[in-house]
Amino acid sequence: MNAPTGRLAGYQAWEGGTDPFEDYAGPYFFKKMEDGSIKCAFEALPHHCNGGGFLHGGSLMTFADYALFALAGDVLDGPGVTVSFNSEFISAVGSGNLIEATGEVVRNTRSMVFVRGQVFCGDDTLLNFSGVIKRIRK
Amino acid sequence: MNAPTGRLAGYQAWEGGTDPFEDYAGPYFFKKMEDGSIKCAFEALPHHCNGGGFLHGGSLMTFADYALFALAGDVLDGPGVTVSFNSEFISAVGSGNLIEATGEVVRNTRSMVFVRGQVFCGDDTLLNFSGVIKRIRK
Amino acid sequence: MNAPTGRLAGYQAWEGGTDPFEDYAGPYFFKKMEDGSIKCAFEALPHHCNGGGFLHGGSLMTFADYALFALAGDVLDGPGVTVSFNSEFISAVGSGNLIEATGEVVRNTRSMVFVRGQVFCGDDTLLNFSGVIKRIRK
Amino acid sequence: MNAPTGRLAGYQAWEGGTDPFEDYAGPYFFKKMEDGSIKCAFEALPHHCNGGGFLHGGSLMTFADYALFALAGDVLDGPGVTVSFNSEFISAVGSGNLIEATGEVVRNTRSMVFVRGQVFCGDDTLLNFSGVIKRIRK
Repeated sequence: MNAPTGRLAGYQAWEGGTDPFEDYAGPYFFKKMEDGSIKCAFEALPHHCNGGGFLHGGSLMTFADYALFALAGDVLDGPGVTVSFNSEFISAVGSGNLIEATGEVVRNTRSMVFVRGQVFCGDDTLLNFSGVIKRIRK
Repeated sequence: MNAPTGRLAGYQAWEGGTDPFEDYAGPYFFKKMEDGSIKCAFEALPHHCNGGGFLHGGSLMTFADYALFALAGDVLDGPGVTVSFNSEFISAVGSGNLIEATGEVVRNTRSMVFVRGQVFCGDDTLLNFSGVIKRIRK
Repeated sequence: MNAPTGRLAGYQAWEGGTDPFEDYAGPYFFKKMEDGSIKCAFEALPHHCNGGGFLHGGSLMTFADYALFALAGDVLDGPGVTVSFNSEFISAVGSGNLIEATGEVVRNTRSMVFVRGQVFCGDDTLLNFSGVIKRIRK
Repeated sequence: MNAPTGRLAGYQAWEGGTDPFEDYAGPYFFKKMEDGSIKCAFEALPHHCNGGGFLHGGSLMTFADYALFALAGDVLDGPGVTVSFNSEFISAVGSGNLIEATGEVVRNTRSMVFVRGQVFCGDDTLLNFSGVIKRIRK
């Protein structure tokens, strides 16, 4: 995948391989900020929306599941699977917007990584989420 | 959308309108069983999978979010939005499988519908989920 | 603790040790039904309630956390800790009622046990819950 | 209830009435910080623990349910009930510790308040939680 441009300039795709559903439902991107935090982003398009013209809950949750792993990336350092995922839907926006996600690793243990974050659009929080990733052996 | 065939024969699409992301990420179908319960289904395809070849968590959660509304359909009887969605990832399967979901309305109040369900493949439960739908005025 | 009587006749306490907070916030009891399923119970007393006279959310969640382990008991077969706990509050009742919980092990893996269940009072569901227990080494 | 002293000096109890289970399972306290944020606290005692000597999950969740309302207090401005509560158990501590909670209102709508927060002990996060409170008419 080529480096993204426009509002997504500065963001990057996963190195070392593609994830078919993330490419299909996104594509999603991330970047490391100067303070070391991770920001994720994608462009909301009409096919990401529900019948009411707002971003579908599944679209937001798929992006958040991507963000879980982007946020956990540095400490995960290997393959993992989502064990649990919780979310609250805070507000709704339509296509044409840049959708972003930030968050933090709450704790990194030998077997699991706990992450929480939020998906937002400008100043509006869209989704509040938390998840547990379980390390799996390579 | 034409009536589905093959393993999806007997299932149907939403009446009265399409949902762009559900058509794109699915398509998803549902049917009312003889006992009045609702079953949802979709065919797992390669583009629904993650880099490891298993159904992506976002694919399962998008299907579950569809199922929330299919399960709530009879009692919801109008538009609604997901307020909260919780899930545990139980096991993983790859493409080529028929993925189904069942569940139940736990309670139907004046303002909200509480739903829980499971996504499965044959005898294997893939996702355990629950959600709260808030009624919105038409 | 003596065997419970009255509405709790037939229920039993944990064997092999006490759990201070469960004794204090309950006490809670369980029994194995003829079909092999587990039912948990406690008597709702005035000090279990909130300022409005309804069972406090924390009381219901503490009972549900107890129920997670009672439901997982046979397959857990050793110590474990709750990793995640999700719940929806379905309806409310006051003191003087017998509160029960049932549920099921959704999956038992080498490292974790997935459980879901419901707390109810008579025909009314009070709490819908799910949780993940992680096995810990003895 | 008298004003708390010792490590809890500066904290206060709810004005205008008591909550039997919070007094019984706590007691819990809160204070408004100089930056306007809310901090909650209680003293972990032996009867708050499980059989392993660590704070019981139900104790942490009951405190977090109290914190939901303390955090939402200013914007809630009236009675409310918890609709959903999600949590991840991050780490464990025993009795003798001061347990605190902080968090934030994610969004305040006409009908609901969305809150997220964390329970911690010193530098250790014990519980990550989020919840939805529904306003009810007085």
